[in-house]
Amino acid sequence: MLTTELSEVEVSALRANKDRLAQDLHHSCQWGSGIRWGDGPTDTGMQRLALSEDDKSVRDWFIQTMEDLKCNVTVDEMGNIFAVRPGRRADAPATFIGSHLDTQPTGGRYDGILGVLSGIEAIKTMNDLGLETEGGVGVVNWTNEEGARFPVSMISSGVWADCIPLAHAHNLKEVPTVASLPTAASEPETMKSALQKIGYMGDVPCSYKSTPMAAHFELHIEQGPYLVTAGQRVGVVTVVQAFRWFRLNIIGRDTHTGTTAFEHRADALYAFARMMVRAREVAAAKKCLASVGIVEAKPGSVNTVPGTVSFSLDIRGPETELVAEVEKELRTEFDAIAAAEGAGIGKPCRVEWNLEFDSPAVKFHEDCIDCVQQSAEAVVADEPVADTKSLVRTIMSGAGHDSVFTSKRVPTSMIFIPCKDGLSHHPEEFSTAEDCATGASVILQAVVRYDRKRFM
Amino acid sequence: MLTTELSEVEVSALRANKDRLAQDLHHSCQWGSGIRWGDGPTDTGMQRLALSEDDKSVRDWFIQTMEDLKCNVTVDEMGNIFAVRPGRRADAPATFIGSHLDTQPTGGRYDGILGVLSGIEAIKTMNDLGLETEGGVGVVNWTNEEGARFPVSMISSGVWADCIPLAHAHNLKEVPTVASLPTAASEPETMKSALQKIGYMGDVPCSYKSTPMAAHFELHIEQGPYLVTAGQRVGVVTVVQAFRWFRLNIIGRDTHTGTTAFEHRADALYAFARMMVRAREVAAAKKCLASVGIVEAKPGSVNTVPGTVSFSLDIRGPETELVAEVEKELRTEFDAIAAAEGAGIGKPCRVEWNLEFDSPAVKFHEDCIDCVQQSAEAVVADEPVADTKSLVRTIMSGAGHDSVFTSKRVPTSMIFIPCKDGLSHHPEEFSTAEDCATGASVILQAVVRYDRKRFM
Repeated sequence: MLTTELSEVEVSALRANKDRLAQDLHHSCQWGSGIRWGDGPTDTGMQRLALSEDDKSVRDWFIQTMEDLKCNVTVDEMGNIFAVRPGRRADAPATFIGSHLDTQPTGGRYDGILGVLSGIEAIKTMNDLGLETEGGVGVVNWTNEEGARFPVSMISSGVWADCIPLAHAHNLKEVPTVASLPTAASEPETMKSALQKIGYMGDVPCSYKSTPMAAHFELHIEQGPYLVTAGQRVGVVTVVQAFRWFRLNIIGRDTHTGTTAFEHRADALYAFARMMVRAREVAAAKKCLASVGIVEAKPGSVNTVPGTVSFSLDIRGPETELVAEVEKELRTEFDAIAAAEGAGIGKPCRVEWNLEFDSPAVKFHEDCIDCVQQSAEAVVADEPVADTKSLVRTIMSGAGHDSVFTSKRVPTSMIFIPCKDGLSHHPEEFSTAEDCATGASVILQAVVRYDRKRFM
Repeated sequence: MLTTELSEVEVSALRANKDRLAQDLHHSCQWGSGIRWGDGPTDTGMQRLALSEDDKSVRDWFIQTMEDLKCNVTVDEMGNIFAVRPGRRADAPATFIGSHLDTQPTGGRYDGILGVLSGIEAIKTMNDLGLETEGGVGVVNWTNEEGARFPVSMISSGVWADCIPLAHAHNLKEVPTVASLPTAASEPETMKSALQKIGYMGDVPCSYKSTPMAAHFELHIEQGPYLVTAGQRVGVVTVVQAFRWFRLNIIGRDTHTGTTAFEHRADALYAFARMMVRAREVAAAKKCLASVGIVEAKPGSVNTVPGTVSFSLDIRGPETELVAEVEKELRTEFDAIAAAEGAGIGKPCRVEWNLEFDSPAVKFHEDCIDCVQQSAEAVVADEPVADTKSLVRTIMSGAGHDSVFTSKRVPTSMIFIPCKDGLSHHPEEFSTAEDCATGASVILQAVVRYDRKRFM
């Protein structure tokens, strides 16, 4: 059976195996199990930092699984793993399903993991059916998408897309404060040393030229409340909001907490507190987000006013320009806050900004969006409601994903499914097995439809 | 020559050796030299955390020095070191000069260190003069006064005074975030294991009963701007302000920074920021201080809203009751701030308070204050101003000191000298050699006057 010979009805009838997908997903979560939140065997979060020992274990399992499914596996010099099920035409690049197996330090079982596992399930379904494709179909696990251990998210798809220099990525140091990372306090590992340590420094150049793709599809939980609140089943992602990540340093003066009047202080932590409060106000006024995830105050003693504070600032918004406006306003406001703290002694605080990551708003490819839209409508057509199409909506992604970078080089789009309470980056992150299977069926059909679009 | 046979003029003529004091002080600062701030050989701060290897080295030097000066040295089970120059009456307890040799992680060369070194200098001067005292004269180095490594300040004088249980002190764990402490990231040491590790777990019980004192005098830099601003030379410390140390935890919810609207967040760090801003306002209105020195946000990832924050809160004021009022008001305000953050999703933050240290306001002993006042007036009498007595003032101590605890058991008072810009707990903490010598001369005379007061 060849994809290009299927009828439209046959394509629309393709379905992933719900139970097998759930079983495989939870099986893979044995490596890096995190905080327990319920009594069930799978009621734990995940803590699988990129390139940790647990990440190595799940990578080993992923490669073994794909080889057992007759895929050809390659690893590039960022540790990205590409597994390709060959198609009829050996010269055509494969259509990829991709996401990531790493998690936040207090993450859940679905963010990223579902995306890779849906790829495995798609290959298993195609093997079961003996379905041959024209171009190959690949599954890719991107390294360190979370940016939790190495503080640039989507870094390895970024290198693949030639948007981030390889040397910059290799030299990136792990965040020393990441909760429970065993090596957190020794000399920080670089990405390069961490790749070498677990044996995942591959020999294929990390580039879209060395590992070309026909397209990239990604299934993900929404990580927001819109689908679940509206009772909708599938989000067809058309755009990704813009975001900019900064590291800021506030430099004040260490002094004694007991003997230094407020007007004699240049308290970097107090300045930070005022900045964080103000950042929310400024961002909210422009319908953007501004968040601080990391803060470090030094020297870190109960009775010393901190003279130095370093913190992360994550600004996001629906348009690139809005994010720039929030940044501009905060630069002015933060300067004023810093100048006020310590002004009484002529030694005001000062604040430094370092841009660490800049991701403009992204529009996905019409061809991919069309494939997802048709597939989503086909998959939900069985649902017992009058207007099944209302179960599908277009949606903006609030978070960045590897698809942001693949979209720079190849046609790309994403599929969202609902998650409980819109909660993500939290141990209790949860999607039902039904919703996961719906998403996997949609991505399976989308890949088949894309193959037909290319070769029919 | 016997103290009780000196004339008043002879007592008033006693002076410390300025150059020797400066030389000894900077010599002792070779162990634990900290951040460099100038070009001169002594232009560095100090970083000598309690019971570190550097602290061991300076302790070894202190003991050797005191034994060379014919003192009897004992070490108690908190590592407090007592060096006593015997007096004529073997049965009478010694009058002590004491302070501490440990520093803040980014401390300077005077806080604590000057107090111990002035004791060494007093013994050297008495030896030079062949001055015999009725009771002995001792010098004591108290362990971990700063509370920087083990987060209870003055803990070892507290055990000595029977105000803190020995077991509590021995089991206290080091703060894992203290800057540059080599062991910060391995399993935290307890005070007991740290004492054993450097060989300073002595066999004398830590108690005012086992190591009795006749009185305790302490020389210290002011750590505030009053003396230096007024051009005064000596502060006769009559009271110590009250303070309370707390550890607070804010419990919110980890969520994704990119996909979680502000109204859907229970952002523990944002709640912290609002609390810190409010704490200053509430404290200032009551002429008190409220300070945060330590903050830890978890999980600590750029794109995860922190669900947990832990921070220190140090409230101080001139009266015990005022500190209690500030605490009461902040408990109410912090509850309200926590309740507001996350209210939109029915999952508000909550805040927990843990009292870690409570030091009511202290009034020093009249006899000691008198000795210091007379000595200070005598020492500054040479100064080329019309009204030399105006160079001496009574003053409140903003910071806690070991004298707070000794005052619970024996007559105690303190002497302040000016420090540059009122700056302390900072590498650039500085007092002139002249001011240090003035302070040392005052404490020398005060000890002699106290000996005369006891036995004449």
